[in-house]
Amino acid sequence: MPSNDSTLDARIRESFAKQGLMQTLGATIVEVAPGAVTIALAASPSISQQHGFVHAGAVASIADTAAGYAALTLMPPTAGVLTVEFKINLMAPAKGDTILARGRVVKSGRTITVSQTEVVAVSSGEEKTVALLVATMMCIEGRAGIAN
Amino acid sequence: MPSNDSTLDARIRESFAKQGLMQTLGATIVEVAPGAVTIALAASPSISQQHGFVHAGAVASIADTAAGYAALTLMPPTAGVLTVEFKINLMAPAKGDTILARGRVVKSGRTITVSQTEVVAVSSGEEKTVALLVATMMCIEGRAGIAN
Amino acid sequence: MPSNDSTLDARIRESFAKQGLMQTLGATIVEVAPGAVTIALAASPSISQQHGFVHAGAVASIADTAAGYAALTLMPPTAGVLTVEFKINLMAPAKGDTILARGRVVKSGRTITVSQTEVVAVSSGEEKTVALLVATMMCIEGRAGIAN
Amino acid sequence: MPSNDSTLDARIRESFAKQGLMQTLGATIVEVAPGAVTIALAASPSISQQHGFVHAGAVASIADTAAGYAALTLMPPTAGVLTVEFKINLMAPAKGDTILARGRVVKSGRTITVSQTEVVAVSSGEEKTVALLVATMMCIEGRAGIAN
Repeated sequence: MPSNDSTLDARIRESFAKQGLMQTLGATIVEVAPGAVTIALAASPSISQQHGFVHAGAVASIADTAAGYAALTLMPPTAGVLTVEFKINLMAPAKGDTILARGRVVKSGRTITVSQTEVVAVSSGEEKTVALLVATMMCIEGRAGIAN
Repeated sequence: MPSNDSTLDARIRESFAKQGLMQTLGATIVEVAPGAVTIALAASPSISQQHGFVHAGAVASIADTAAGYAALTLMPPTAGVLTVEFKINLMAPAKGDTILARGRVVKSGRTITVSQTEVVAVSSGEEKTVALLVATMMCIEGRAGIAN
Repeated sequence: MPSNDSTLDARIRESFAKQGLMQTLGATIVEVAPGAVTIALAASPSISQQHGFVHAGAVASIADTAAGYAALTLMPPTAGVLTVEFKINLMAPAKGDTILARGRVVKSGRTITVSQTEVVAVSSGEEKTVALLVATMMCIEGRAGIAN
Repeated sequence: MPSNDSTLDARIRESFAKQGLMQTLGATIVEVAPGAVTIALAASPSISQQHGFVHAGAVASIADTAAGYAALTLMPPTAGVLTVEFKINLMAPAKGDTILARGRVVKSGRTITVSQTEVVAVSSGEEKTVALLVATMMCIEGRAGIAN
């Protein structure tokens, strides 16, 4: 039974708040919907690579998180989600004011869910696609320490 | 001509120091050799995911950086490196005292270099493999803003 | 200058006809458009894996080919295309009458193009998504033996 | 309990023989050991791409199969294996007399196994690495139609 219940938004945000990395990077949840989660990250020198662009690792971090929570929205309320693997293509330098990672479920399964995240850089209100992530997520139930 | 000259170590460390993300995460360069770079990251709540493990994004960030610099060590001294894409398998929860990302070049080419990073978690001196990253790196020469 | 000229369709089909593997598998080109190529494969025991489904390798073969030709449609008429890497998620067993691989360009660049292929299995006219491939393609010009 | 019993070799070869695609391509099993399987493919025009090299899809097919059977060697005797996803880097044109895919298990788990395959082209007895595949394999037990 998917968890597109009234508490979905609260559960995802509560879980997100526990992610120390997201706070450290300055990332925030923008939107939660069944099968789709968007995360935003303000570009800043503290998340840069050597040429001043946003680091591929920071881009991957929010893209993976968006993909994982998108998957979690369609899992049972008591389940946790773990990333089995992901692949990301960096298609353009990530520069701009804000980086948006839009994760959505491509295929939801009992054990394995495939999610995809499109990452765009927003400069003066204009969007440019900078990365594409595809991830394999695993639904974990009844394992101590792995929930939501 | 690979850049395994006397200035190699200094150039890589200087470039690494410009990566705001590595400082923000608390990552450090452990070793630089021709075709191989190792990066360390101390586990802490500030880089965690929701279950308390080190976030896959933080693991990917140092693994990508190690893979990129490993590639750069075999490129001309004036070249810069960009990540075209990477794929990472998270094989075990990243928990321990320190996370080590050991990047090495698998195939060095004029334009494209393939690198691989093994990520291990060190707990009380014992190592456990937690992730495997394979990356496609691109050698950039003569493009404004992209060097070292 | 993209090669969406009048000869585009003929050039792609001529190149496809040189692919011994496509003939061996029984694959055919269904559609060629600027930035998009579709390839079809009739399911049969000669391309099966051990459980009787179409082999992941056969699925990947047509998906890679569709992605590569989709990229080639946007390259100069004299260019050749090589697959740098691809990643494929097998989301459901590939069983049915026909397997369709719909490749399209996600991001076209001078050297690197990113393509994505959705693979569907068609059974009694009904489609089911069975795989998703993301590929990094390289434009090759002026290298002996690599054209179209 | 891993299936490194006396029947291991026979079970893998029996399963391989059911793969129509491997016969169609002309692939053969060279070696079976616990955690490692090698498959060979004779280069020929019937498995070529448009420039005359062995098609990336044929390379991926034997690499995926080697990775899958390497995983299966460490699974219970009654289990079946399915490829969840794989990623392959094509590092050099696959040309030569024979293509060898050497699969080995990187991390064996109850549900998920990560395998890696190195693909080499053999020309006049000399080997050259042409591709690297990393795959996520899933252990299937008790599902009708999915065994060995």
